[in-house]
Parts: sequence; C-alpha cells; structure tokens
Amino acid sequence: MTAGVDPTTRQRSWWGWGWSDQALPDDECVALAALVPGLPDRPLPTPAIGELAPPRVRPPASLADRISTTPPDRAAHTYGKAYRDVLRALHGDLTAAPDLVAFPRSESDVVDLLDWAGRHGVAVVPYGAGSSVVGGVEYRGDGHAAVLSLDLSAMDRVLEVDTVSRAARIQAGALGPMLEDQLRPYGYTLRHFPQSFEFSTLGGWLATRSGGHYATLYTHIDDLTESLRVVTPVGVSESWRLPGSGAGPSPDRLFLGSEGTLGVITEAWMRVQQRPRHKASTTVTFTDVTDAMDAVRAVSQAGLYPANCRLLDPGEAAFSGLAGGGQSVLLLGVESADRPVDGRLAELVDLARDHGGTARAHGGDQAADAWRSSFLRMPYLRDGLARMSAIVETFETACTWDRVHELYRAVYAEVGAAINEITGSPGVITCRITHVYPDGPAPYFTVIAAGRRGREVAMWDEIKAAAMEVLGRHRATVTHHHAVGRDHRPGYDRQRPEPFAVALRAAKAALDPYGVLNPGVLVGPS
Amino acid sequence: MTAGVDPTTRQRSWWGWGWSDQALPDDECVALAALVPGLPDRPLPTPAIGELAPPRVRPPASLADRISTTPPDRAAHTYGKAYRDVLRALHGDLTAAPDLVAFPRSESDVVDLLDWAGRHGVAVVPYGAGSSVVGGVEYRGDGHAAVLSLDLSAMDRVLEVDTVSRAARIQAGALGPMLEDQLRPYGYTLRHFPQSFEFSTLGGWLATRSGGHYATLYTHIDDLTESLRVVTPVGVSESWRLPGSGAGPSPDRLFLGSEGTLGVITEAWMRVQQRPRHKASTTVTFTDVTDAMDAVRAVSQAGLYPANCRLLDPGEAAFSGLAGGGQSVLLLGVESADRPVDGRLAELVDLARDHGGTARAHGGDQAADAWRSSFLRMPYLRDGLARMSAIVETFETACTWDRVHELYRAVYAEVGAAINEITGSPGVITCRITHVYPDGPAPYFTVIAAGRRGREVAMWDEIKAAAMEVLGRHRATVTHHHAVGRDHRPGYDRQRPEPFAVALRAAKAALDPYGVLNPGVLVGPS
Repeated sequence: MTAGVDPTTRQRSWWGWGWSDQALPDDECVALAALVPGLPDRPLPTPAIGELAPPRVRPPASLADRISTTPPDRAAHTYGKAYRDVLRALHGDLTAAPDLVAFPRSESDVVDLLDWAGRHGVAVVPYGAGSSVVGGVEYRGDGHAAVLSLDLSAMDRVLEVDTVSRAARIQAGALGPMLEDQLRPYGYTLRHFPQSFEFSTLGGWLATRSGGHYATLYTHIDDLTESLRVVTPVGVSESWRLPGSGAGPSPDRLFLGSEGTLGVITEAWMRVQQRPRHKASTTVTFTDVTDAMDAVRAVSQAGLYPANCRLLDPGEAAFSGLAGGGQSVLLLGVESADRPVDGRLAELVDLARDHGGTARAHGGDQAADAWRSSFLRMPYLRDGLARMSAIVETFETACTWDRVHELYRAVYAEVGAAINEITGSPGVITCRITHVYPDGPAPYFTVIAAGRRGREVAMWDEIKAAAMEVLGRHRATVTHHHAVGRDHRPGYDRQRPEPFAVALRAAKAALDPYGVLNPGVLVGPS
Repeated sequence: MTAGVDPTTRQRSWWGWGWSDQALPDDECVALAALVPGLPDRPLPTPAIGELAPPRVRPPASLADRISTTPPDRAAHTYGKAYRDVLRALHGDLTAAPDLVAFPRSESDVVDLLDWAGRHGVAVVPYGAGSSVVGGVEYRGDGHAAVLSLDLSAMDRVLEVDTVSRAARIQAGALGPMLEDQLRPYGYTLRHFPQSFEFSTLGGWLATRSGGHYATLYTHIDDLTESLRVVTPVGVSESWRLPGSGAGPSPDRLFLGSEGTLGVITEAWMRVQQRPRHKASTTVTFTDVTDAMDAVRAVSQAGLYPANCRLLDPGEAAFSGLAGGGQSVLLLGVESADRPVDGRLAELVDLARDHGGTARAHGGDQAADAWRSSFLRMPYLRDGLARMSAIVETFETACTWDRVHELYRAVYAEVGAAINEITGSPGVITCRITHVYPDGPAPYFTVIAAGRRGREVAMWDEIKAAAMEVLGRHRATVTHHHAVGRDHRPGYDRQRPEPFAVALRAAKAALDPYGVLNPGVLVGPS
C-alpha cells in the first residue's frame, strides 16, 4: 500500500511548502531570523513522522489498491500549507492525520469511495495538492467513524481539446504545470497562475474559487469554467458545455467555491487561450500610498484591463527590494496573443502619472521578474522563518474603493496593536494590491512578527482573529481568493447572508445525506 | 382600490407590448399580413376586459391600500408578453388572472405581503414590468388558495450613488429608462439595454439573468451586480458590497436567475459606468453564412471585445432591409468612455475581411440605428401580426462554436419541417447572433408562419416543442437570456444536472417553506 509516495521521484515536503530539496538549510534559517528581532537562535528541527494511531477502519478490499495507510501518506495529508499547519507539523502534532488516503484513478473510483464512505460514516476530505491555507483539507470533527483523504492527483490528464471553441476537458487532479504542459502543444494556455500554481490542482482551484495571477478581466477560475463534472453522494452532476446560459441559477456557480462540501469535482471543460506573444511591463513609483491607491483606482476604471496592476505599499516595496524610502511601487503589465501592447501600456503609465506617479524609464520586465521570483520563493522563506518561530502569515480581502483607505489604515493600526499586544513587539505589516476591479481592490496583507516557541500557533490565531474582526467591521470579505475552509468560518459566518446559509445547508443535506463531505467547511460545526 | 392604473398617464397595453398608443391600427395589421400568405383578412379585435371571477381572498386590512382588485390591474398582470400570452389575451382568456395585485412601496411592505401570503397559502408571483416571454409571471397551478401578483413598480428609485467605487443602489422596480434618468446626472449608465429595456425592471433583469444589448464583455446583468437584497419568507438576505470574493459559493449567483422562486429581490448595488463618449460602427457583408459565422468566431476570440457584433443571417438581413441576395450582414461597433475606438474597429474589420467579408465604406451608424429602431419596433409589429393570426415568435440559445454550424442547419431543417407539418405552409425562419463568447455564440431565431384562427397558441406550442427538442439534442441551452419560467421547463429539466436540481429543490423548500413563491417556475410541477 504505497499508492502515493514514489521514492524514485523528487520529494514533496510533507510538513512544509513545495519540494523538500528547496527547503532552507538550518544556517539560512538562522541568517534569515536576523530580520526579526527576538527569535530563538536555533531552528526547530525538520520533523520526523512519529507514531500514528492505527487506522480506525479497514479499506474495502475492492478499493484496497487505491488506498494507502502508510505514515508518510497519512502525515502528508494531515494539513494544508498555512503557517499554522507548518508549525503544527514542525511540533510533531499529527493527531488529525487521516486514517486512509485514497488515490482514485477514475471517476468510478470516486463514486465507489463516496459510496463506501457514506455507508460507513467515514468523513471524506477531498484533496488536490494540499495547498489550502485555510484548514480546508484538515478534519477537525469527532462525529465520524474515520477520515479518508481523497487525493485526486492520479487524475491529471487533459482528456480532450476543442480547437474550434478553444476549450479543454481536464481532470481535476492536474497540477498547474502538468496541465499547461499538455495544453502547450496546441499553442494554448489556461492562463491561470495562482501563487500555488506548482502545487495546486484544477479541482482545487475550482472548489475554492481560485484567483489567478492577473489583475483584471478573466483571472478568476470561475470565469474560465465552461462546464463541470461533480460526483455527489446522490449522483454525478454534469453541466452542459455552454458559453453562456440564462437557464436558472448557474449550476456551476453553486459548485464553484463549495470546497468539497457538496461533491467532488472530477473534471471540467475549461476555456483556454492562445499563448500571449506580446508583453510589456513597467513600474511606477509614488511617494504617497494614498495617491498610489487612487492611481490604481483610475487604472481599474479606465477599461484598459492590464494583465498586471500590482501595487506594493512602502513596506512591501522595501521587502521586495523594488523601492525604499517610503515609496510605493506599481507594477503594470499588458499582454496580448494578437497585437502589440505598447500603446496600451503608455496609456496606463499616463494615467498613473496623472495621479502623482513617477514612471521608471527602464526595468519593467526585470522588476516584474524579480517580483515574480521572490513571490514564488516566498513560501520556502516562510517555512525557514517558521522554523525560527517567527510568525509569518498573510491575509487577503477585497472591498469597494470608497472603503479602502480607511480599511488600510485600520489594519495597520488595529492589527498592528494586536501584534504588539500578543507578541510583545510591533512586528511588521506590509500590503500589496493583487487584483483590481472597477468597484474595488483586493488588498493582501503580510504579517511578520516574533513568536514564542511552542506558542506560535496560538499567537497567530489571536492575530488572525483580530484581523478578521477588522475586515468584518469594514465589510471587507474574509477572503478574496484563499477560500473559507475551517479557519475563516468566524468571518464567513458573519458575512454570509443568513438566508443563503439556510439554502446552502439545505443543499448540503440533500446532496450529502450522510454528512461525510468535508465536515466543518462552510457549514455545520467547524 | 386603484393602486396600479393611473388614467392620467400614458397607458400601457394590458394585452400586448408597450404603449397602447403604439399598437398598430387595424388597416396596418391587414397590410402587414400581406407578408404572410394564408392569413385571415381581418384582425382579431383588440380585446375588452370581460368579467373576471371575484377574488378568492380578501386582502388584509393593513395592506389594503397597497392592493388592487380592479379588472384592469388583474387583467394586465395575468400574462407576460410572449406570443402565446398576447394571443390568449386577444381571445379573451383571462382565467389565469390573479386574485389580487399588490404594489408595495417599501421592503417592509414586501415582507408583510410574503408573511400574509405564506400564512394563507396564497401563491405570490413577483412581477417587474411583465415582459416575461416564458410564462414567468403567470400562475398555472391549482394548489393555492389564491394568487397575488406582486408588482414592484412603485419601488423605482436610485437610492444612493457611490462615485468613488462607481456603483449605485437601485430599487428593483425601476424600469430601464427610469434608472438611466436617475444615473445620468452623475454621468453614469448601467449600460444594460435588453430589447425589453423600456418595459422591464432591474429586479426582473436580476431574477432572470438578463442579457444586455452588448455582444461581449460585461453585458450580462450577473456581471454588473455588486450585491443584492432579497426578501425571502425566512428572512432578508443582503450580500456585502464586494468587487470580488472567494468566500464560498456566491450568494448572489444563487438568487440571480432564481426567477422569483427563492425570494423577491428588492434592491441591488449595481456597477455603473461612465457614459461612452467614443463610438464607431460599421457593417461587413458575407456571401456565405458559414464564412460569416467563422468570422464572428475569429472576432470573438481575438480579445477585441466589440460592443456590437451582431450577425444577421440572409433571412434576417433581408427582413431588416440591410442586405438582399442571400447576403449575411455583420454589424460591428466599438465604444469607449475614455479613448478613441477607430483603431479597434479597423482591426475588427480586418479580421472579418480575412474571413471573406466585404466591408461597406459608409453607413455603419445608419445601419446600426436602422437595426436598433426596427428592433424596438418589432414587438408592436409582432402584436399586429398576432391579431392577424400569424405565428410570430422567437427562441434563442447558445452553444459552443464546434456545434453551431450543425445546430443552425438542424434548426432550419427540423423546425422548418415542423412548421410545415403543423401549419401546412413552410413559414419563415431567420437567425441572428446576438452575443458572442470566445467559446461560442448565442443564436436567436425568429419564426413567422400562418396560424389558424383559434389554434394559434396550440400551433406555436407544437413548433416550440420541436425547437426545444432540436436545441436539447444539440446540447444548446434552452435559453440564453429569456429565462426558464414555465414554458421552458421541458428543456430546462432535461438540461439541468439532476444533483443541481436536488440542491435547488432543497434550497427552495428551506427558503419558501409554504411553497408560495412563483410555483411551477424552475422547480416543482409546472
């Protein structure tokens, strides 16, 4: 029973982000810790997988070759990759490990696994590549006979490409690079690049309403979806492939964002695009972050749809090495598969200049590349700092433009105060704007502070609660693209209209009559 | 009790489209009938409102001044404005008239009316301006104590405008022109112009997922919606104003398209835009309709997002007077609030030329205006022909590009055969493409044939059934932007994934425990 981990291939870290071989060595962790005053002088050791309680159920014989009970597979499927997940793994806490990890190879395997789980009261936690940062893949209940982690990674094929309609039928378990590799021969791309791209799957993106890398226009996975196949305990749901339809509430929009609570997405027809051939980018600096945000607002309302419109506030700009001295940096980028984009970039720069920005003459591409590479490296650095008991985590949101200045100030003031109170030192907050809409931006905050060894998770949970309170009070969403999972339930329960909660609970009860699908996520006791 | 009809203002037709004073006089009906061989020589008389059965319930005293029981109000709220509705009214069939017509002036009126209806088992049919062409506002059940038509037209205000975020809070009963009038002083427009614009409301657009006039990008009402307030029998649902959010399945997307079955939309924050200042348009002709569709596909996949990309097939082009001799006509238009658009129009024309089109040197604006004016006049002509017992109706759909040629041929062949068989003469089918997406178009078919007096509705119902069968077999949606109502149930029930139906029924049962909200629409016996 070793269906999951193959020792001949490059190893994923079971406790931290990404590839094991990319994890920071101890000396780099120590060096990095110099950035955060007050940390211990030695890293937490990289953890060994200790004893796990024996599985509480036997896998059914008919599915045995799809199911693993090995400690490495069970450990690797215990948590997602939030800061608090990494810390708990570092401290050797694997009490929440699933009893079984299933690796279905086909939709009928998924059907059989759900049938079996329903009959035996076994909780099913759908699992793509485990990049959840909201407790989305971690069982926390106690009302089930056992827990099955349902890992879709063996279902990773692009099954069909329609070159007339520019769409592709893709299995839910395909990781980002894997599906792009399969689309490349056609000249296509899904063009959906979340930060987790290497270690997240199409199914995960769909189930969590993932936001892509691009700032405007069709960047959300929702908008790239043509149709879905979803295995529910009461049957398989398949929506028709339709470019648009006004026939009732959208079936796909109910499953998008359902986070494994209503069914298991097994495949989807996705709208793909020709690969961009024309790209241009630049940076604009601002001495006043308020001006910078107003410039971003102007850009977002001008109908120019930049591919990149990422504003780094002074702290974020300093950390990324793109500017100092209290300057904010706006990264602007334009892309097209069809036509030159320089004129559009020039219009964007003009707009930003009108709002007090200073365009840099050169280096737009290098700045974008530098940003992107530090962006992709960030989770490994996070893990290195986590081993030094630093608190390193993010929270992201969206609000309307009329609220953003006040929200920004409130987060700095109130979350800053909470950090000080909880950790005893001020820590650091930085902010970037990742997505922009005509009616509002999506600010993304990073928190870095000194934790106390053994208290890291508790301290972060308190800071996070303070952050959720500030967001909620300003009616900013508890998450723009990180999903709800279990960690965001307090904010989500406050934000979600109660009649919609009534409808969602009823839909859940009807589709999942045995209550086995990802219990505690979105609805029910968390 | 005359809350509804005010005799001092211009009169809406109770039996047909729009303004009474725009209805065709008898001699024009007769002249028009020359277009359709085989019609009677005299029009059906414009109907008088005959005796109506007395209301089966007394309105509650506390709501009496919000409720009308006058025959004109009850007659005007009996049907929508489908061909079959007009014909039944012309033939004096008002057996489905609601017992009461309510005109709430505030959300609390709506709450009180739903409470009262729930307690007394009175069916509630939410009513905007009654432009449904799918039986969406017509009660057909027999399990309720009485029927209340809930007319939102007194709630027609733009309540608030946020000029920073470019959004407006608008009451659901506002007709198109009324809300545009209120936005104009701000330089804003909702820029949502369905054909029914003059005689449909924001709430109706939201409840039916209306498609606007524009061919690409943000044209559906869904995408213009920032947040919704909905009165359900179990409480008021209000989503937060958010430009984007990944917090669970979208609450708004459940209510969008719910067609009054889950609640009554009372107001919404809508994303508004600056009024366009730059416009350019032109026409391109094609000798081969297949080439024309391929040109439209190329345009839709080029990332140019034309405001107008309306393809008229040879029949449609001939009827509208824009081309003859078997030519198809593509109307292309580009708009922007910010910058000149001529370059973009030139790119579009180049693309169309590459696919065999011939650009006309002049007259784009005139052609667009001519099209638009005949488009808005069409429903009045339809009513004139209906009085001559002609069958004049449309059906619209959407499908992926890989299916469109085959679907187009199948509709002409099979629906054409059905018309011949049912009416005894071939009739006419024409087609236009109204909306385009990278992965497919939305074809819109018109049928004109000679009906037999007294049998018009039955004949159309048979033709429509044949059309729905063809659409379903080709997995083309039963409706792109006309909603489901009661008339589209056979096609909708076939198309909707069964697990989604299970979820929707459960949500409905939870939100509408007394089963009073628009019974027979979307779910339940139709």
